[in-house]
Amino acid sequence: MTYNASSNDKQLLSTWFQQLQSKIIESLLKLEHQYAQNQDAQFVLREWNRSASDAQALPTSRESHEHGGGGKSATLKGSLFEKAGVNFSEVFGKFSPEFARQIPGAQHDPSFWASGVSVVIHPRSPHVPAIHMNTRMIVTNQTWFGGGADLTPIFPVEQDTLDFHQALADCCNRHNPDYYPKYKAWADSYFFLPHRNEPRGIGGIFYDNLNSGNFGADVNFTHDVGQTFIDIYEILVKRNMSKTWTEEERAYQLMRRGRYVEFNLLYDRGTLFGLKTGGHTESILMSLPPEVSWP
Amino acid sequence: MTYNASSNDKQLLSTWFQQLQSKIIESLLKLEHQYAQNQDAQFVLREWNRSASDAQALPTSRESHEHGGGGKSATLKGSLFEKAGVNFSEVFGKFSPEFARQIPGAQHDPSFWASGVSVVIHPRSPHVPAIHMNTRMIVTNQTWFGGGADLTPIFPVEQDTLDFHQALADCCNRHNPDYYPKYKAWADSYFFLPHRNEPRGIGGIFYDNLNSGNFGADVNFTHDVGQTFIDIYEILVKRNMSKTWTEEERAYQLMRRGRYVEFNLLYDRGTLFGLKTGGHTESILMSLPPEVSWP
Repeated sequence: MTYNASSNDKQLLSTWFQQLQSKIIESLLKLEHQYAQNQDAQFVLREWNRSASDAQALPTSRESHEHGGGGKSATLKGSLFEKAGVNFSEVFGKFSPEFARQIPGAQHDPSFWASGVSVVIHPRSPHVPAIHMNTRMIVTNQTWFGGGADLTPIFPVEQDTLDFHQALADCCNRHNPDYYPKYKAWADSYFFLPHRNEPRGIGGIFYDNLNSGNFGADVNFTHDVGQTFIDIYEILVKRNMSKTWTEEERAYQLMRRGRYVEFNLLYDRGTLFGLKTGGHTESILMSLPPEVSWP
Repeated sequence: MTYNASSNDKQLLSTWFQQLQSKIIESLLKLEHQYAQNQDAQFVLREWNRSASDAQALPTSRESHEHGGGGKSATLKGSLFEKAGVNFSEVFGKFSPEFARQIPGAQHDPSFWASGVSVVIHPRSPHVPAIHMNTRMIVTNQTWFGGGADLTPIFPVEQDTLDFHQALADCCNRHNPDYYPKYKAWADSYFFLPHRNEPRGIGGIFYDNLNSGNFGADVNFTHDVGQTFIDIYEILVKRNMSKTWTEEERAYQLMRRGRYVEFNLLYDRGTLFGLKTGGHTESILMSLPPEVSWP
């Protein structure tokens, strides 16, 4: 038996996603200030609304009605974190007919509601891994959770890889012993670039369409993924942030970032979902690295 | 009455596309050597084969049989031209069922043959416009030509814009008075980024599915597009290449190049066609600019 989220449930999740955004911002700022040994770096916050007039401006293929909601994007351009984007959004509307066919529960009624947090961090140092985390709840005629976290080191370090996977395994196992093997395999197949025949990074977990029948349990799992991300990334950053790097290592990093761009624009569901549903382009593409090369 | 290309016709076009590639290389090298006042810069040539074993290595979604053909990519990394890619390819095989549905004449028999030349040039100076040109012939149960040329100045100059459009108008009008208005409008709608609500550059011409019923006439038009591209770009480059630029102008250029990447990976048919038909990734993505920023 699956559940359907009520208005109260939506409110609950939206509020919690905003709290998660604040927690992540706080954690990243602490690391940034510790690294730079000053308090100068700050996130820039931007609120955006997805108003009816925005919907009007959309080209035909992205047209939809009863658009609404908005979000809050937070961007840090620091010394440690060359570019870190932490986005919260809560949007609702109707999918275009073409898009509705692809979405569970939207075949007959294209109405949707979605809220979530999305984080992408590109450190300046090639020795500090880039990371991505996202958790979200989506409501059509069905309700489900999705999300995940994956790590993209430029120069993978075995202990980091082991610790990252272990933290996610522990997180999953606190909720359901079936989750980790399934969600790790899903990440391995999802974060993959067919045209390069290579993975994006070292993987992590990826899940979607999660409705276990127990709303409270799924909310708790969502909370845990968010907190696990904060805790393990803090460990990995502190472990690597004092390493120096060469120009060659930096050049290699910029080239590898090109792969990140290719993945996000060619394959990433969240990116394409956002762009096709009239999302806030600047927030969606905040995931793209600050400096990139295709040499 | 439309025509169907014979084996001889395919051979003719493939040979001509290779000659066009050589002419373009020659023209760009002359400009590069004139600018750098030495003969150091050279194109790097790479031949690639699309062998059966490549097809085996493709993931399921890109699987196909009787793959074959290959191409020759030429890349220049110079002083004037920070990155110029001039690609020739001649490939054949069978489309995947999913892809075949979208291609004229491939619904019942997924066999295809395609040959063409594709050029993307990213000058180092923000005052020398980037340019793209492509001409191709595709054969399924139907035969057609496609192609176009479009200009992407970072800081548009009115006279350049006028001259570029005039050159293409003259070219089209030498063949059919209906072509220019139709193909210019097609470029305007094609080279457009819906998620940014902005055009990629100042446009040009874009055409596809061209089979006028007169094979010789379509071949002549294809020849003329190639030569017109060479002639007008030479004029525009010479006109702008001695201008100096500031750091701010360079930073703006790198940001604008991000839009070029977004277009190619999100929307460009040639790029997606190539990646989905098991094309040569390095050649296809040679269109991506050498240095890019998403600040």
